[in-house]
Amino acid sequence: MQMNPRLSGLRCIRCERLWPVADYPEGCPGCLEAGHPASLECRYEPGGDAAMPLPVLDPVTLGEGATPCLAAPALAQAEGVGRMWLKCESANPTGSHKDRMAAQLVSRARLAGATRVAAASSGNAGVSLAAYCAAARLEADIAITRDCPPLQRDAMQRFGARLRAFDDSLSRWPYVADLCRDHGAFAGTNYLNPPVGTHAYGVEGYKPIALEIFEACGVPTDIVVPTARGDLLWGIYLGWQHLRESGRIDRLPRMHAVEPYARLSRARATGDARGNWEGVTDQYSIAGSTSTLQSLEALARSGGSPVEVSDAAAAQAQQRLERSGLATELSSAAALAAVSRLRRSGLLDAESSVVLLLTSDGRRG
Amino acid sequence: MQMNPRLSGLRCIRCERLWPVADYPEGCPGCLEAGHPASLECRYEPGGDAAMPLPVLDPVTLGEGATPCLAAPALAQAEGVGRMWLKCESANPTGSHKDRMAAQLVSRARLAGATRVAAASSGNAGVSLAAYCAAARLEADIAITRDCPPLQRDAMQRFGARLRAFDDSLSRWPYVADLCRDHGAFAGTNYLNPPVGTHAYGVEGYKPIALEIFEACGVPTDIVVPTARGDLLWGIYLGWQHLRESGRIDRLPRMHAVEPYARLSRARATGDARGNWEGVTDQYSIAGSTSTLQSLEALARSGGSPVEVSDAAAAQAQQRLERSGLATELSSAAALAAVSRLRRSGLLDAESSVVLLLTSDGRRG
Repeated sequence: MQMNPRLSGLRCIRCERLWPVADYPEGCPGCLEAGHPASLECRYEPGGDAAMPLPVLDPVTLGEGATPCLAAPALAQAEGVGRMWLKCESANPTGSHKDRMAAQLVSRARLAGATRVAAASSGNAGVSLAAYCAAARLEADIAITRDCPPLQRDAMQRFGARLRAFDDSLSRWPYVADLCRDHGAFAGTNYLNPPVGTHAYGVEGYKPIALEIFEACGVPTDIVVPTARGDLLWGIYLGWQHLRESGRIDRLPRMHAVEPYARLSRARATGDARGNWEGVTDQYSIAGSTSTLQSLEALARSGGSPVEVSDAAAAQAQQRLERSGLATELSSAAALAAVSRLRRSGLLDAESSVVLLLTSDGRRG
Repeated sequence: MQMNPRLSGLRCIRCERLWPVADYPEGCPGCLEAGHPASLECRYEPGGDAAMPLPVLDPVTLGEGATPCLAAPALAQAEGVGRMWLKCESANPTGSHKDRMAAQLVSRARLAGATRVAAASSGNAGVSLAAYCAAARLEADIAITRDCPPLQRDAMQRFGARLRAFDDSLSRWPYVADLCRDHGAFAGTNYLNPPVGTHAYGVEGYKPIALEIFEACGVPTDIVVPTARGDLLWGIYLGWQHLRESGRIDRLPRMHAVEPYARLSRARATGDARGNWEGVTDQYSIAGSTSTLQSLEALARSGGSPVEVSDAAAAQAQQRLERSGLATELSSAAALAAVSRLRRSGLLDAESSVVLLLTSDGRRG
């Protein structure tokens, strides 16, 4: 395990300033100072034989990645699009895409000399970080909400994490901020409000998804991603961007963000991701009242759109997928419901080739 | 989807008689008549470009197989063996190795013109068959026991299976026998007592595990497999046998069968697998009072041993794996406890290279 010697710096996605290789859990220091939390994007020297450069080489692994990309011709036909694939992230070790991020993030934590990771999560991220911290022999402090599903809580504890429960989602962040800023913990999630994307090295872990999709089905026209604060959306975008920069492809797929109610669409209208948009939803893994600049950037740079999906539409899609043999959590099934909406609005048509990110099978719901 | 044109027949593992290509859910008709249920082994014409020939080409798939094979140097050191790997079958779509069997079996059911699959299972096999039947648009009738865990039952029903509950394990088999013999259902599991291995085409689905292990770590000296009626044990053995017959390897790994109390060891002592050995265990997925001839054959042909693991030893191993970031069901963790026993008995030593089959992560326990 070592840092990638080709990692040359980090660039702010807002002010484009370059920062030297180091840990920036709060994103661009300049933009944070200006009151605009903004993610940093890793930059690498060209060359090397890696198909997709990542910050940590030979990271701690539990077998994440290389997930199935299933052709779904019956669903494509039913939706009136040309082709459809399902990228099944539930095949990851703890059952969600988060394992890809945790592998890079926890490995970096260990290389940086940290002995503990702190995070705010009542779901897949917390379980994943707990497992990878166990694998890396690091302590994990997870701030959960009191409504955290018992199976999620149980899984985190079995992996040895210390849990602390809070009344609501936003009240977890000051606790995590304190652990990270003043007690030497490595940040496993955002803790700012307004929030920023997770540590850039962690988000890089999602880039191989783009390569895996490319190898399974070329460059689709559209990719549909369930989105809360957009680490996955942005990370997959970065993967496609790398494929284009390295000359392997000449166009990008559009990245669409699925949300349970209007957050990104309202943020996009004002150009400001810093709002607080309350809403009620059962789509647990993409709930929350905040958004991020990285989500707006992924949409803008790829030409994609935010798509609102109601709980009822997501539940119907969930049942359709189950009757095809696929278990999904509600917020993953929302990606299929989003296809119907995009088709009706004319953003998808019979020529479209679409990949849905099925982020988790909801095994601990 | 089509039958493999190179599939040339089936050979009885007991009397060695050859049978033409067809469905034999009760194994060798001759040996059954003689009162000795015995599995059939698929035979293929040599040649073809498949690395591992299977009965159904382009089967219904949910993305099964190609599971991680994790190096576990810390566990190897702790156990005093040379090398250790963990083959993580929980990465399969419904969370267990059973998906490999279900893909072949359900595909064959559809090619054979069946409209329904019937099976006796209160666990991983039932969930897997339900999912693959949904994918293949077949009906699934699953006979469960009344103590079937609620999450297993719920998963089967979400995939659209019809369930029928029985007081105990053995009483399910006459119900399934009736559906298969007199109502046109395709057999998804054994229904004989004394039992035989599952339909030979289904068991073939486990053969690629041998190839995947070979590609990840060469030919290990020993493979440790949690075992009830031995489909997995025998299927992996068949994979290694194919690699040897096709000249890719020149020796076989020993296949060891983990059991919660003495069944196979008693069957081996008498040479008769048809006994009924009652016992109490929490190792749910490898419980049951019966054994099979195919399990004895896998041990005998590979030079492996049955290994008894107590519930307490399995629980301790389960916790050790969790503290390494790996969730396992109790009967999977038993494989690690079996290594300790094999080491103490001198069957493993510092030169051994050992692969453990982690059959499921117990997500619905």
